[in-house]
Amino acid sequence: MMDRIPILQIGDVLLVSIQIDLQDQTAVMLQDDLSTKIVETGAKGVLIDISGLEIVDSFIGRMISTTAAVSRVLDAETVVVGMQPAVAITLVELGLTLSGVRTALDVNRGLRLLRRSIDDDVVEGNVTVDDRLAE
Amino acid sequence: MMDRIPILQIGDVLLVSIQIDLQDQTAVMLQDDLSTKIVETGAKGVLIDISGLEIVDSFIGRMISTTAAVSRVLDAETVVVGMQPAVAITLVELGLTLSGVRTALDVNRGLRLLRRSIDDDVVEGNVTVDDRLAE
Repeated sequence: MMDRIPILQIGDVLLVSIQIDLQDQTAVMLQDDLSTKIVETGAKGVLIDISGLEIVDSFIGRMISTTAAVSRVLDAETVVVGMQPAVAITLVELGLTLSGVRTALDVNRGLRLLRRSIDDDVVEGNVTVDDRLAE
Repeated sequence: MMDRIPILQIGDVLLVSIQIDLQDQTAVMLQDDLSTKIVETGAKGVLIDISGLEIVDSFIGRMISTTAAVSRVLDAETVVVGMQPAVAITLVELGLTLSGVRTALDVNRGLRLLRRSIDDDVVEGNVTVDDRLAE
């Protein structure tokens, strides 16, 4: 079994497909790898696909929220896609909110959502961390 | 551990990221799922990402070739992406050829390769299985 989750680049979006039950070590490596890759590629969006997960517990939920927070600081937006109905029900029942994370039904819709956000961002010329540091 | 590998749709391309050592059962299910999804979505291309694999043995090699052959009959082209250097060396040393399969360095390049093939196909109006059946 692998303990490193591949990060795939699609244009300026990074795609992570989580297929295995994450252990602490794997989750930490994923966050490291992902932030490194955002900086390297200048990616503006992150898609986390969880269609392969039948269970999302508080550990994974927290991992996703943290990943989104770190990505945001690096000026990349996170969208979670492929959530199974049972997972959605469990999240609500457990009172777990994926704070700061948007969701979309599948990769296609997630990509479209990110595309809109990224384009808006460019059009509106939102102030980013880079801009602030430059001031 | 999951025994079903998610198939992600990006436009008219299906993406499969193989992250775990495939067992017979998992491989059979993947082929079943993939051919069903090609038919359902009318996808014209299949990307198989193996960046998560450190070893590609003859079993996986054969699985990839068979998947490509089945996809071709369903009028979808297969490109393997993300092969690690060590895997490429092993394949050559073992004399394993991924017959009928093209490779690209990463998902971005694989998507571009498929895009060109698909567009050419439409422009040239190549005869497809569908056309032949219609005659």
